[in-house]
Amino acid sequence: MSDVKDYIKTNKNDHIAELVDFLKIPSISTDSKYKDDILSCANWLMNHLKNIGFEDVKLIKSKGCPLLYASWLKAEGKPTVLIYGHYDVQPPDPLDEWQTPPFEPEIRDDKIYARGASDNKGQIFAHIKALEYFLKNSGKLPVNVRILIEGEEECNGHVIHDYVKENLQALKSDIILVSDTQMIGKEHPSLSYGLRGICTFELEITGTKKDLHSGQHGGAVVNPNHALANIISQLKDDKGKILIPGFYDDVKGITVEEKSEFEKHPFDERQYCEAIGAPELFGEHPHSILECLQARPTLDVNGIIGGYTGEGFKTVIPAKALAKISIRLVPSQEPEDIRKKFEEYVRSIAPKTVKAEVRFLAGMGPWSIELQNDALKTAGRAIKKSFGKEPLFEKCGGSIPVVKTLSEELRAPAVLIGFGLPDDDIHAPNEKFDLEQFSKGIETIIYFLEILADVK
Amino acid sequence: MSDVKDYIKTNKNDHIAELVDFLKIPSISTDSKYKDDILSCANWLMNHLKNIGFEDVKLIKSKGCPLLYASWLKAEGKPTVLIYGHYDVQPPDPLDEWQTPPFEPEIRDDKIYARGASDNKGQIFAHIKALEYFLKNSGKLPVNVRILIEGEEECNGHVIHDYVKENLQALKSDIILVSDTQMIGKEHPSLSYGLRGICTFELEITGTKKDLHSGQHGGAVVNPNHALANIISQLKDDKGKILIPGFYDDVKGITVEEKSEFEKHPFDERQYCEAIGAPELFGEHPHSILECLQARPTLDVNGIIGGYTGEGFKTVIPAKALAKISIRLVPSQEPEDIRKKFEEYVRSIAPKTVKAEVRFLAGMGPWSIELQNDALKTAGRAIKKSFGKEPLFEKCGGSIPVVKTLSEELRAPAVLIGFGLPDDDIHAPNEKFDLEQFSKGIETIIYFLEILADVK
Repeated sequence: MSDVKDYIKTNKNDHIAELVDFLKIPSISTDSKYKDDILSCANWLMNHLKNIGFEDVKLIKSKGCPLLYASWLKAEGKPTVLIYGHYDVQPPDPLDEWQTPPFEPEIRDDKIYARGASDNKGQIFAHIKALEYFLKNSGKLPVNVRILIEGEEECNGHVIHDYVKENLQALKSDIILVSDTQMIGKEHPSLSYGLRGICTFELEITGTKKDLHSGQHGGAVVNPNHALANIISQLKDDKGKILIPGFYDDVKGITVEEKSEFEKHPFDERQYCEAIGAPELFGEHPHSILECLQARPTLDVNGIIGGYTGEGFKTVIPAKALAKISIRLVPSQEPEDIRKKFEEYVRSIAPKTVKAEVRFLAGMGPWSIELQNDALKTAGRAIKKSFGKEPLFEKCGGSIPVVKTLSEELRAPAVLIGFGLPDDDIHAPNEKFDLEQFSKGIETIIYFLEILADVK
Repeated sequence: MSDVKDYIKTNKNDHIAELVDFLKIPSISTDSKYKDDILSCANWLMNHLKNIGFEDVKLIKSKGCPLLYASWLKAEGKPTVLIYGHYDVQPPDPLDEWQTPPFEPEIRDDKIYARGASDNKGQIFAHIKALEYFLKNSGKLPVNVRILIEGEEECNGHVIHDYVKENLQALKSDIILVSDTQMIGKEHPSLSYGLRGICTFELEITGTKKDLHSGQHGGAVVNPNHALANIISQLKDDKGKILIPGFYDDVKGITVEEKSEFEKHPFDERQYCEAIGAPELFGEHPHSILECLQARPTLDVNGIIGGYTGEGFKTVIPAKALAKISIRLVPSQEPEDIRKKFEEYVRSIAPKTVKAEVRFLAGMGPWSIELQNDALKTAGRAIKKSFGKEPLFEKCGGSIPVVKTLSEELRAPAVLIGFGLPDDDIHAPNEKFDLEQFSKGIETIIYFLEILADVK
């Protein structure tokens, strides 16, 4: 055990220097003008995996962002672990709120600041450094390993889903291992046993065939900004309940066991409120904030735009207004069912004075694993060894659609060991990754693979 | 009479060539990056007025966009007319909807397409060409003339208002003449006898101190996009009534005389609906659309923005969301009163889970002139002579704050002879000015000044 810690400490500077190179590449998948950077990033990873000793490494090209596959399968009789991660990142805007540029990583107070530092480059890189530890010290891994790192997680791409479904035999694995979530805190190591699902939509309101002068025409036509606001205001009531008919039909309540996990959680509403800087919290009545975050579905307008929004003022009634909307799902809600219900509801409340178009972008159901699952217990032992504490268990409010696909298609349990922290500001300006968590991450993955080799 | 028509016909190409030069300058006042173009445009106008024979021409500089003043005061014993116009224009966005670039004027089907063609460069230029007619043919004007052309009409600037108030004696005039409105149609020449007032605001909602991941935090906090939509949805009811308490307290009903003017108006709701391409019209119940456009106050969200609005999707709960809101006022609503009522109402309905900030940008009350006013009758005679028809009278839905300032401060009646047409698309892509209206405009102004010289 001390060998592992020593190794990580000794090599820390080299590991960070490599991570910096990885973080410098602006691999933004949702915006097609970064297409070349996506390719550079995939190639960088491919070369890196080859350098640490993976012989079978390839880029799977498609019309989307390439998928990276690597494998090391020489541990005869030992289980096979499929490690998943993503090399693409969220757009960095609003850019002017970054203390240092998002693609010029900077270390402050033993934390590395860059877009993708925590989500997901830093975390997947901890896995790669754990694998390197074995290959460098013994020339082999304790278990068989497959690696799948995609470039479309942040834009809900289909490449990995299609690839998995078409290559079930070639990807056969016993356990799926993912570090793309967060721990409750540095002092509260935790494991995620569930993810919310997600449906994303665009809602476009068209009022007239062209922008109109609001003096000349104001009072005679519906303004699409108002029509859109009216529709949005009817999506939730003032107690946070989503008003789409039948929306909660398939929502399962939490179990007694889950309730007892909630009770162990050191969540402090006032502290949380201060951390995010909200005047007050607001969750769906009568559920606790923790339950709202982990076990209740939500609906959010992630973007809204219409009319003149630049400097100064323009007295215009815009022809169109647009909202980008996401719905988070919990067991046993189904994306297709929610999609239909959302579309029907919007159609029913949209005024006849405008055209309301709903465009469905992507959907994926929620995922969860039983708290008694063996793979989860193995992860718990690895965490106990590295962090010196039993992990807590929580459900993650975010969505990682591929976890469900991998777990269901390969019929293997998925283990989510997140090393991120709640204040990492993923998807926001000044994203960071705690370098102590980075080291602990490498350590935990090393133990996990070692324990797995012994257990099976 | 035929001399005037001949003169205008003979010089048409020269007039248009000069107008093209004027339209080429992107004099956008609301966006400070066009500051140099504003200055170029003011200088272009100054030189042009000097060239046609105005000796007393000056730019009045200030911290805002310069104001242009010119005068010709040698018609002893004759009345003095103050001609007002503006050389600044609206921003041209959305740019990609222009058939030809907004600052590269193009003539199609005897109409000139460019930003500012109708609002207000083409119209003020008709006045200048009318003045040139007299100066060129006789070396003098039939009446005394002052010209005030501002560069801040489209951004609600204060320069002209301050200047007028500080120079009451120097600006002494008997009639104010403005062409910054529209006629009902080419076959329906008309005069405007009223303008709506306006108050503009920004409403900014702040939820948290930074953008949040909508998976990680969704369900625990109010999303500013939702809070903003909820506030907007409470500004009007589903019958178009504005819900600000006391908003209609000072709204005067229309008079019998006004009602009879409405009845003469050839307005066709179906035709109007088709012209703007709306699925259906929507006015404040139970008022007619024409009444809603001319005699009722309105409230419009002219711009709304919050969260990620680029290509693709970003699962973010934005820290802030913003709306730009304008309220149009009718007699006898007062901007200061409406400002207070709006701010109080928004404060009362904003949820405690966010910070709601209302920023008042500008305000100006409504204006109107008695239908029996002599100056209006003189304008009617000029129109009859040029268009061959008695004009209709209508109130204009837009706002030209300076008309109220000029009329009240100089204690002179204002005459609004608009040569624009309802389909000119002012403030919208593909703005145009009908060149037949341009010629008729020059002709009408010539007659107006001639009749005025005889009348007084």
